[in-house]
Amino acid sequence: MTITDTTTWTSARLKQVDKEYVIHSWSVQGKLDPIPVAGGSGSWFWDYDGRRYLDFQSQLVNLNLGHQHPRLVEAIRAQAEQLCYIGPGFAERSRAELAEMMAGLTPGDLKMSFFTTGGAAANENAVRLARHVTGRQKVIARYRSYHGATAGAMSLTGDPRRWAAEPGMSGVVRMLDPYTYRCPAGHPDPCPVCSGGPHLEEILRYENPETVAAVIVEPVTGTNGLLYPPDGYLRSLREVCDRYGILLIFDEVMAGFGRTGEWFACDHWDVVPDILTTAKGLNSGYVPLGAMTVSARISEWLRDNMFWGGLTYAGHPLACASGVASLRIMQDEGVVDNARAMGERLGAGLAELAGRHPSIGEIRGRGLFYGVELVRDRDTREPLVPFNAKGAAAAPVGRLLKAAMQRGVYLTANFNVLRLTPPLIINAEEIDLALGVLDEVLDLADEHYQN
Amino acid sequence: MTITDTTTWTSARLKQVDKEYVIHSWSVQGKLDPIPVAGGSGSWFWDYDGRRYLDFQSQLVNLNLGHQHPRLVEAIRAQAEQLCYIGPGFAERSRAELAEMMAGLTPGDLKMSFFTTGGAAANENAVRLARHVTGRQKVIARYRSYHGATAGAMSLTGDPRRWAAEPGMSGVVRMLDPYTYRCPAGHPDPCPVCSGGPHLEEILRYENPETVAAVIVEPVTGTNGLLYPPDGYLRSLREVCDRYGILLIFDEVMAGFGRTGEWFACDHWDVVPDILTTAKGLNSGYVPLGAMTVSARISEWLRDNMFWGGLTYAGHPLACASGVASLRIMQDEGVVDNARAMGERLGAGLAELAGRHPSIGEIRGRGLFYGVELVRDRDTREPLVPFNAKGAAAAPVGRLLKAAMQRGVYLTANFNVLRLTPPLIINAEEIDLALGVLDEVLDLADEHYQN
Ligand SMILES: Cc1ncc(COP(=O)(O)O)c(C=O)c1O
Ligand SMILES: Cc1ncc(COP(=O)(O)O)c(C=O)c1O
Repeated sequence: MTITDTTTWTSARLKQVDKEYVIHSWSVQGKLDPIPVAGGSGSWFWDYDGRRYLDFQSQLVNLNLGHQHPRLVEAIRAQAEQLCYIGPGFAERSRAELAEMMAGLTPGDLKMSFFTTGGAAANENAVRLARHVTGRQKVIARYRSYHGATAGAMSLTGDPRRWAAEPGMSGVVRMLDPYTYRCPAGHPDPCPVCSGGPHLEEILRYENPETVAAVIVEPVTGTNGLLYPPDGYLRSLREVCDRYGILLIFDEVMAGFGRTGEWFACDHWDVVPDILTTAKGLNSGYVPLGAMTVSARISEWLRDNMFWGGLTYAGHPLACASGVASLRIMQDEGVVDNARAMGERLGAGLAELAGRHPSIGEIRGRGLFYGVELVRDRDTREPLVPFNAKGAAAAPVGRLLKAAMQRGVYLTANFNVLRLTPPLIINAEEIDLALGVLDEVLDLADEHYQN
Repeated sequence: MTITDTTTWTSARLKQVDKEYVIHSWSVQGKLDPIPVAGGSGSWFWDYDGRRYLDFQSQLVNLNLGHQHPRLVEAIRAQAEQLCYIGPGFAERSRAELAEMMAGLTPGDLKMSFFTTGGAAANENAVRLARHVTGRQKVIARYRSYHGATAGAMSLTGDPRRWAAEPGMSGVVRMLDPYTYRCPAGHPDPCPVCSGGPHLEEILRYENPETVAAVIVEPVTGTNGLLYPPDGYLRSLREVCDRYGILLIFDEVMAGFGRTGEWFACDHWDVVPDILTTAKGLNSGYVPLGAMTVSARISEWLRDNMFWGGLTYAGHPLACASGVASLRIMQDEGVVDNARAMGERLGAGLAELAGRHPSIGEIRGRGLFYGVELVRDRDTREPLVPFNAKGAAAAPVGRLLKAAMQRGVYLTANFNVLRLTPPLIINAEEIDLALGVLDEVLDLADEHYQN
C-alpha cells in the first residue's frame, strides 16, 4: 500500500501509466494508443510534443466555450476558495443562482431545476419523475438516439451500444426517426414518420396512450447522425402528447446552450417540453454537471409530492458556480450569435465542398452542429460505411479521420456521418482552416465513390 | 429570455430563490426549509447569520478531509488553470496518476480503474462489466443497502427508495443482511445468514449459480444502519463466489478511504473483491468523482474485450486531480491514523453514554463510521421509530436531530439509527463537544423508553 511519488511526467511515462491503469470508455483497452494531451486554449489543444490540434469536436461536444476560457477558470477558482461542496439538503448560492438563471433562459414556463453530474442522470430523473407525475409506466424513445450509459438512460438509448446493456429498464417503447435522407418509411408525401404526429399516434394506438408517461427525444439528434427534424415535427409531437396527457421530454444535453445557433434547439421551432434535460454546454463540462428543468405545472406538483431522486453531488456548488459563470460569459460575449455567424460560414463552405466532392451525400446543420453524410453513390445513397461498422468495415471513414488529425484537425464520425461541432467561440480563420483540411481529406472518401 | 443580474445575496433572498427554483433530493419540495450555508472550514460549516455547526455527518459522508481543506482547494485551482477537461479518449496526467495511485492503495491485485462522476455510475459499470466478464445475468444484492439512484444502481439498492423506481433493471436477486442485532433468521448459533456463506449458498441453489454474475455488498453497510459483518462473513462470501466463478463486488463508496480506520473497510478482514467501487472519500467530493477498480484478471480481460461503458465526464481531469491531491493529503497528514484514534475516543465516549441512556440499544463502529441504534426497550429491542418511519412516526428521532442542530451539532439518522460520521480530520475537542451534545439530546430518546 504505497503511493508512487511521481515528480516528472514525460509523454512516454504518461502513455505507459495510462496503458497500465486507466480504463477508457467504449474500447478494447489493448487496441488503444491515446494521444497524451498536455493543454488546451480556445479551439485548440496540444500534446506533449507541442503538436496542436484544432478541436472541431469540442471534445464530446461539451466545450462550447472552448478549452480553458479564462473567465470560467477564474470562476472555478473563486468558488473553490469559497465553498467546494455542501450537501443537497442545504440552500447554497451558486445552486440557487443557476436554477434561477435556467428558469430565465429556458423556453416557455420551464421553472424548477434539479442538478446532476451529467446527462445520463438528468434523463434518469426526468423519466422517473414523468412516471410519478402521470402515474403511467411506458416511455417512448427513438432508435437513433443516445441518452446516456446508466441502465435507465441506456434503455432509452437506441444506439447499438444499448445491446450490451440488455435487458435493461422495462417499459421503453421505440418509435422511428425523422431521418428524411434515409426515411425508414420510404418517405411518402406526406410522410407519417418524418412529420411525427401520425407515427406517434399509430404507436400509441397499439400501446394504449393511457399507459404512456412520456415521449423523450433529442430535438436535434446528436451522436447518432446529426438529424434535424422537418419543420412541424416537434410541434406535432407536442400536440399528440397534449391530447393524451403524455409528458414531452427534450434531451438537449448535446444540442442545448447555443450549439444550434439558438439557446436551445427547440427554440428554432418554438416548441416547449414539459421537461428539459441538459449538461455539456451548460458549463462546457469544466466540472461535471447536468440539469433537469421542469414546467411550472410539474414544479407545482413537486410542492406537494415526493421527488424520488438524489445523488451525493446533486446541485454541486463548484459545478453550479461554473454553470453560472458559463451562462454569463455566453451572454456577455455574444456566444450564441457567434455560433450562428460561424455556422453560416461553415455551412457555405461545406456547400462549396459538396460541389467538388461527390462523396458528400447530405449536409445537415444549423449553428455549429453539422453532420456531413458520406456516400458511395448519391443516387442510391449507399453509405460510405454501413450502420454499426467496426474494424475493417469502418476503415474508409477511419482513414479520413486519421488524415485530418495528421493535418491538425480533430474530427470524429458516427459511422458514415462526419461530426462538425467546434467550440462556439471559434473564429472565421479557424473555420476556414478546417474547411481546407476537409477539402483535402474528402478525397479519401471520393476514392470509394461508385467503387 | 433574460438572466436576472444578481449582485447581492442575503440569506432571505437565497431562501426565496432556492424555494422558487431548486429541486432538492428525496423531498416534498413544499415542506423544505433548508438552511442557507455560507461557508465551511474543517469540521465546521456556518449559515448566513454566522451560526456555526459541527458537521458530524461529513455532509453525505463524503467530506473525509472536512470542509475547504487548503491543500485540496489549491490542487483544484492549479489543475483548473492547467486543464479543466479533456475527453475520455485521450491520455491525461491526473487521470493516469490517480489510476496508478488507486492500484497502489487498494488491496490485493486490484489494478485498472474507470473514473465516473459518483457512486451510482461506478456501480452501474461494475455490474455491467461483471455480466460481460462472466457471460451471466443475475446479480445478488442485499436488502439493507444503498448503491445509488440511477435505474441499475437503484435496482441493486434494497432501501425503500427503490420502491419508487420499480420495475427497474431485471436480474437482481436479494439476500438477507448480517444484521446481528436484528437477525432476520433469528440468529441461531451458528447463524447461516450472519455467517454469510451458508445463506448465499442456499440462494444460489435456488437461483442456479451458473446464472449468477456477481454478488454486490457494502462490506460495512452505510446509509442503511451502519451494519458491521461478523468476522469471517466477507471471507465466506469470497469463498462461495470463488467456488462458483461468481465475481465479488465491494461497494466502498461510503466506507472507503479511511472512514473505518483502515484505507478500505475490507482491509479489516483481508478480503479482496474482484471489483471495488468508490466515490465520496476518494476526493471528499470537492469535484464529482467516482471509481471502479478491477482485479488484474479483469484488467487482462479488458485488454482483449470491449469495455461497454462511458460517460462524457469519465476520467474528468479536474476531478482526478482533486483525487490525487486528496490521497496525498491523507498520506502526508496521517488521516487514517487520526480516524482510528478519534474513533476510539468516540467509541469510548458512546459506551459511557450507554451507561446513562437506556435508549441506546447498540453501538456499532470502527474508525469514524458509527451507528447508534435507539430503542424503546433493550430486552425486546423495539426500535425508537419503526423501519421506513415517516412524518409523525419518525418524530421521536426527528426531535432529537433538531435539538442537536439547535446546539450546533449536525446529525442525521436512518430511521432509529443515529449516524456519527464526522470528517476524518476532526480533533479530540470536537469529538468531546459532540459527545456532550449527544448526552443532552439522548434524554429526548430516553423519554420514550418503555413508554
Ligand atoms: C443527447 C445526449 N444525452 C445524454 C448524454 C449522456 O450524457 P453524460 O455522458 O453526461 O451522461 C449524451 C452524451 O453524449 C448526449 O449526447
Ligand atoms: C454505499 C453507497 N453506494 C453508492 C452510493 C451512490 O453514490 P452517488 O450518490 O455518488 O451516486 C452511495 C451514496 O450515498 C453509497 O452510500
